[in-house]
Amino acid sequence: MINRLAIIGVGLIGGSLALALKGKGAVNEVVGYSRSEDARQQALDLGIIDKAADSLAEAVSGADLVFVAVPMGAMNSVFEGIADYLSPEAIITDGGSAKAQVVAAAKQCLGEKFKQFVPGHPIAGTEKSGPSAAFPTLYEKHRIVLTPVSETDSAATAKVKAMWQLTGADVFEMNVEHHDTVLAATSHLPHVLAFNLVGMLAERNDCDEVLRYAAGGFRDFSRIASSDAVMWRDICLGNQDAILSLLEQYHQGIKQIEEAIRNQDGDYLIDVFSRAKKARDSRFADPNLIDNSEV
Amino acid sequence: MINRLAIIGVGLIGGSLALALKGKGAVNEVVGYSRSEDARQQALDLGIIDKAADSLAEAVSGADLVFVAVPMGAMNSVFEGIADYLSPEAIITDGGSAKAQVVAAAKQCLGEKFKQFVPGHPIAGTEKSGPSAAFPTLYEKHRIVLTPVSETDSAATAKVKAMWQLTGADVFEMNVEHHDTVLAATSHLPHVLAFNLVGMLAERNDCDEVLRYAAGGFRDFSRIASSDAVMWRDICLGNQDAILSLLEQYHQGIKQIEEAIRNQDGDYLIDVFSRAKKARDSRFADPNLIDNSEV
Ligand SMILES: NC(=O)c1ccc[n+]([C@@H]2O[C@H](COP(=O)([O-])OP(=O)(O)OC[C@H]3O[C@@H](n4cnc5c(N)ncnc54)[C@H](OP(=O)(O)O)[C@@H]3O)[C@@H](O)[C@H]2O)c1
Ligand SMILES: NC(=O)c1ccc[n+]([C@@H]2O[C@H](COP(=O)([O-])OP(=O)(O)OC[C@H]3O[C@@H](n4cnc5c(N)ncnc54)[C@H](OP(=O)(O)O)[C@@H]3O)[C@@H](O)[C@H]2O)c1
Repeated sequence: MINRLAIIGVGLIGGSLALALKGKGAVNEVVGYSRSEDARQQALDLGIIDKAADSLAEAVSGADLVFVAVPMGAMNSVFEGIADYLSPEAIITDGGSAKAQVVAAAKQCLGEKFKQFVPGHPIAGTEKSGPSAAFPTLYEKHRIVLTPVSETDSAATAKVKAMWQLTGADVFEMNVEHHDTVLAATSHLPHVLAFNLVGMLAERNDCDEVLRYAAGGFRDFSRIASSDAVMWRDICLGNQDAILSLLEQYHQGIKQIEEAIRNQDGDYLIDVFSRAKKARDSRFADPNLIDNSEV
Repeated sequence: MINRLAIIGVGLIGGSLALALKGKGAVNEVVGYSRSEDARQQALDLGIIDKAADSLAEAVSGADLVFVAVPMGAMNSVFEGIADYLSPEAIITDGGSAKAQVVAAAKQCLGEKFKQFVPGHPIAGTEKSGPSAAFPTLYEKHRIVLTPVSETDSAATAKVKAMWQLTGADVFEMNVEHHDTVLAATSHLPHVLAFNLVGMLAERNDCDEVLRYAAGGFRDFSRIASSDAVMWRDICLGNQDAILSLLEQYHQGIKQIEEAIRNQDGDYLIDVFSRAKKARDSRFADPNLIDNSEV
């Protein structure tokens, strides 16, 4: 049971955790802080938080669990702002999409309390953002990755794990670097690719007309290009190395496909396309298993 | 009313047209031909066709409307195989995803009868293929593009248009080159990008583990990588110029994003990502309008 949960950043990720835990009766009181007055008021109105705090200090004072769910570029200033006000027993965790940068920021700002920080990343989300995007079942049957480091108190990790399990999520541990590479491959790179395609079409004079002929394939491919620009700027800048190295690899693949198209080398195309189809079908064969696959 | 409809290639596209027209009582008899005995039998069993023909000649003899829905690489041999058996009044149309190549093949093979050929492309589909993937509502509220050329008989175009309208589709005309560019941008390029990403992940030793952490964004982005490899080889080879030129443009965009990530130029990223988000949101704002947007 959490007595006082502080949510810093009451948007999709923070708001959904609050709603899920409240729904399970797992928390006595939720205090929320967001940079804008507007977001705080919305979160209150939507019943996401019980109390809006006027400052980071107020939000975390007396909290036994603090969830930081702001864009990654704001993590550093949040950690700075809360460090002095965290109770000695408070556990801090976050939802940032890339972990190395967040861990470095926490280490730098939290001092002694860094051992109480459990880095985390819920592999769940939508392209929507803000308090109104939050919903209580976001994490059900989704994966949460925790990336504790050598300093992390294992009791803190266990508590954060238990908290996430209450939302119906499956919790896994991974090391920071592995997490950042895996997520660059399955999430960050696809976002960059989709943003780039739609951004390129948006520059055409005939963009509206072109998009009128876009069907379901394009709609699904490009859904992630509707994601929040600030969040994705921060992820790109925060997971720079992994993303750049995968982009390089990606480009090698495209160059070979280009060559094959130029040389009318159908066999090469069949080879790549079939391998891709096979891998994709084996992961997503049954649509009901999408976010629920066995380990 | 169509007396005898011949479907050459009784898969997703051909089969769905047959089912739609039968459902509307718009056709007396559907004769189907497919390369494999298996597909023919399946199409019969599923009620897609009333009669399976043993040859192209048999399929088109006496047909007043012939729909060619084979992979683009097989169009040429189909046109060759039917040319001599088409009745003088028969109208021929197709569903190939890129038009210049199909038009060239038809022109070369159909001789005098080329004027009866109405090139077409239904902007509808799924990543599934074969007779079992066909369903009667595939075209409802979807766009069909016809790309008649100067030789095309306008009465033939009108009849093909009327046929598609019976399926509940909206029918548009475009010139061949414009079609091939627009579709390269909204369909062919995204397919190549998705195939390449999943193909690249499939080569990793830890592919299974990596894909386990792929969430909804990846699932939707990569759905089109589950498409048929033969069909997409043929489209890539058949729409070579438009695809290569867009890939080049795409790469320029990626290079600038890479630069921005490397230089921690957040403003540039925000700029591209917001433009993309805006364009995507304006096209797909209301999920109910997805395939139903007004002209
Ligand atoms: N969306 C996803 O799919 C997803 C999935 C997994 C993890 N994540 C991660 O979760 C975190 C939050 O993402 P989200 O999708 O929940 O974004 P969001 O819906 O935009 O919520 C972020 C919240 O943080 C507030 N905020 C922004 N800057 C702040 C600051 N300096 N101090 C305090 N509050 C601030 C924002 O409100 P105001 O600016 O109005 O105050 C907003 O309410 C990010 O680190 C993201 O990488 C996102
Ligand atoms: N799928 C889409 O989303 C989509 C959308 C718009 C347009 N198209 C276009 O529509 C056409 C058909 O695509 P589809 O998705 O319907 O593919 P599909 O489901 O695989 O159907 C193609 C059919 O053609 C048969 N076939 C293959 N080679 C043949 C040949 N040489 N002679 C006679 N039959 C042959 C195949 O059966 P057997 O080989 O077993 O005989 C199969 O039944 C393609 O040109 C494609 O570009 C597809």
